[in-house]
Amino acid sequence: MAKENLSIPRGTRDFGPQQMMVRNHIFSTIRSVFERFGFAPLETPSMENLSVLTGKYGDEGDQLIYKILNSGDFLSEVKPEDVQNGHKAMLRKVSEKALRYDLTVPLARYVVMNRNTLTFPFKRYQMQPVWRADRPSFGRYREFYQCDADVVGTKSLICEVEIMQMIAEVMERLEIKDYIIKINHRQILAGLADFCGAPGREAEMSVSLDKLDKVEWKVVADELIQKGFSETFVQKLEQLRTGIISFLSADFQKLKEEMKSNELAAKGFADLDAIVNLVSGFPEVLEKMRFDLSLARGLSYYSGPIFEVVPQGVKVGSISGGGRYDELTSVFGVDGIPGVGFSFGIDRVYDLLSELGKTSAMPSSASKVLVVQFDENQVPFYLSLLSTLRKSGISCELYPEAAKLKKQFAYADAKQIPWVVVAGEDEIKENVLTLKDLGTGTQKKMGLLELVEKLR
Amino acid sequence: MAKENLSIPRGTRDFGPQQMMVRNHIFSTIRSVFERFGFAPLETPSMENLSVLTGKYGDEGDQLIYKILNSGDFLSEVKPEDVQNGHKAMLRKVSEKALRYDLTVPLARYVVMNRNTLTFPFKRYQMQPVWRADRPSFGRYREFYQCDADVVGTKSLICEVEIMQMIAEVMERLEIKDYIIKINHRQILAGLADFCGAPGREAEMSVSLDKLDKVEWKVVADELIQKGFSETFVQKLEQLRTGIISFLSADFQKLKEEMKSNELAAKGFADLDAIVNLVSGFPEVLEKMRFDLSLARGLSYYSGPIFEVVPQGVKVGSISGGGRYDELTSVFGVDGIPGVGFSFGIDRVYDLLSELGKTSAMPSSASKVLVVQFDENQVPFYLSLLSTLRKSGISCELYPEAAKLKKQFAYADAKQIPWVVVAGEDEIKENVLTLKDLGTGTQKKMGLLELVEKLR
Repeated sequence: MAKENLSIPRGTRDFGPQQMMVRNHIFSTIRSVFERFGFAPLETPSMENLSVLTGKYGDEGDQLIYKILNSGDFLSEVKPEDVQNGHKAMLRKVSEKALRYDLTVPLARYVVMNRNTLTFPFKRYQMQPVWRADRPSFGRYREFYQCDADVVGTKSLICEVEIMQMIAEVMERLEIKDYIIKINHRQILAGLADFCGAPGREAEMSVSLDKLDKVEWKVVADELIQKGFSETFVQKLEQLRTGIISFLSADFQKLKEEMKSNELAAKGFADLDAIVNLVSGFPEVLEKMRFDLSLARGLSYYSGPIFEVVPQGVKVGSISGGGRYDELTSVFGVDGIPGVGFSFGIDRVYDLLSELGKTSAMPSSASKVLVVQFDENQVPFYLSLLSTLRKSGISCELYPEAAKLKKQFAYADAKQIPWVVVAGEDEIKENVLTLKDLGTGTQKKMGLLELVEKLR
Repeated sequence: MAKENLSIPRGTRDFGPQQMMVRNHIFSTIRSVFERFGFAPLETPSMENLSVLTGKYGDEGDQLIYKILNSGDFLSEVKPEDVQNGHKAMLRKVSEKALRYDLTVPLARYVVMNRNTLTFPFKRYQMQPVWRADRPSFGRYREFYQCDADVVGTKSLICEVEIMQMIAEVMERLEIKDYIIKINHRQILAGLADFCGAPGREAEMSVSLDKLDKVEWKVVADELIQKGFSETFVQKLEQLRTGIISFLSADFQKLKEEMKSNELAAKGFADLDAIVNLVSGFPEVLEKMRFDLSLARGLSYYSGPIFEVVPQGVKVGSISGGGRYDELTSVFGVDGIPGVGFSFGIDRVYDLLSELGKTSAMPSSASKVLVVQFDENQVPFYLSLLSTLRKSGISCELYPEAAKLKKQFAYADAKQIPWVVVAGEDEIKENVLTLKDLGTGTQKKMGLLELVEKLR
């Protein structure tokens, strides 16, 4: 294979050192916050049995699942005439396994398989790639990481409160200041449809309402009429709708008051009030929370509070979201396991940090200092110096060849290694080292102890 | 799908919280050592174009690559009569992508694609899963992690020296004390075959020699004769062969002396001497290194020093290995890029720690302390307590419901959370908390400051 034809599959990416240093920073920040809140890690196989995944994501989802060809002679059960029956019928004969599509179905599968030994409430986080045979486009990839945290086996709204805190903590550690957490409740949406005169049609209503952050009310209203909602329904909805408002606002109180006769909505508002009440002990979290009546979130399995984290003043859309569900595992025949979960989109977070100009400020090299190989005969000295630095927690490396100084400095520059140490025979005899700051260009002679202090 | 039929594909595994806490400890130890030595992270896509992987692992390897079915109508180019041409011919029509089989071919592909912008020597590490459609058995999985570190673009033996140091550092941090690093050199093997009278036949010879750690010399000798090596060859080989010996031993000096007329072997010994000479500044590393003339390592692309890390006194075999190669990228048409690399087998390391009884000593829960929900009305107080603990770096959680104390303690026990805090209305009024050590069963009342000090 010639070098000219080399490529990677469309919609996938190589992450070089510079990107990985940032990505690992994001991963370790999220992991550290998850663990601080008592979530424990879980990993499931990349491959699941096709029967586990099929039928869980709708017809369109089924199409987007990557199937794995059976190994060995995958045609052993295939007859020529099978080709005429089409690819859907053929699939069962040539493929038994597929790549996971999200982390929620594998979680449900894991919980069902281990339900007799697991300790509930089960608090797990999972950070692994998922695969979707989607059409690649800006910000949409065929392989991407999800970072999920779920509490399974409790209806306690304390979980929601802690999720709000975790979001705020991750944002603070990543130095993302300008964002809001949009919040709504599935039962408020159900109550709203009911209250306006179309009980049970909240899904259709929500799909249209969801567009309000992109289009004007008129467009949404027309769409609802086209869907067969009545003029009265649309008028009532228009009266009730709010913008994205604070939970402490008069508008929020007014809406709650107006809908209080509706039992579904009242239950939803009671949940939100309970959450807001507990979060009020943490004003820095509460100030990020907004009520958004048009927030719907697609996945139909949500049944309680739902939320989405939206950075402000940037192009990147929501970077995290989640909600409460009553039935995690009923698709696998086990009922009555409720829970709540949320997910960070690592790629979106990366894009956001990049748009905010924060990625260039992060370390792009593992090494903090390059020891120049000035003199081949001094390699034992250099190795001993490296060993001392590393024991002091300083990542460092020796240029592996006694190349020209210019080349070695260019290497440090290209890798954005901030410091360089030079030591020739004379300096080594005198017990001094020259430390050069590649940022400012200044250099200074010093002893080993001072060097370690300076670099640490 | 009924719960009874749920399973995961054979040869794959779920890693629950307890296993993951240990695995993450191994991962972060290795990552930290790699970075301390100046290696930077790289990640490549799970899926590679099938053409990139095919032909790189031999015929048997090609069979073991997991192929991904084209998405959409994968039969669009297939005619019924194609079925009769067999699965190998069919493959090209239904699959374009495959799951990576190791991390070396993706590295080579990445280096070729980015050779004009990369800074050489390129020091990268990569920790990602690989997939092989192998027959599953004890310790052999279809999905497993590899942790590779390579230095690409230099012939400097300093890299080998640093790899020895990195191995020793990882072992020390994982508290694995009893192990050796077996070392050999491909040119010594070539020289040996030449010296004994069968030039160019070192590969065949090595396959037999490699069995010496499992069978007696007689068996190896018979196999060599069967392969067509002469009696003289076998006799000469028997005279020269050593056991697993120290580089400081008389036997090693004697072998070197005997073979010094052979140019290939002399080059190999010169390399090893240079490595040993530099490592001698680090006696704790040197004492782990052994010369092993029968070490061959399978992959044919190695061309210089080769090595393998073998724990002693346990069932688990080698947990790490690697070597030097002259041509990383020639399979992709780019010549003259040498390098050296090695890899840790995470699953083997896990099995070893487990065999050594070290996995039970590691934390199995993310939380260090469970705050009991003694009184539902005190949840705001509990949340504020949690917030204080977390700000002090203590991972903790609140039981989400005001369940019976017995149930909450059982939860902490099952999750191996070492401490429990109980605070009822009276205690909160008095500004005291009860801290219970679940290991010893002792408990004590104390103020918040003392609690934080104790847990930190």
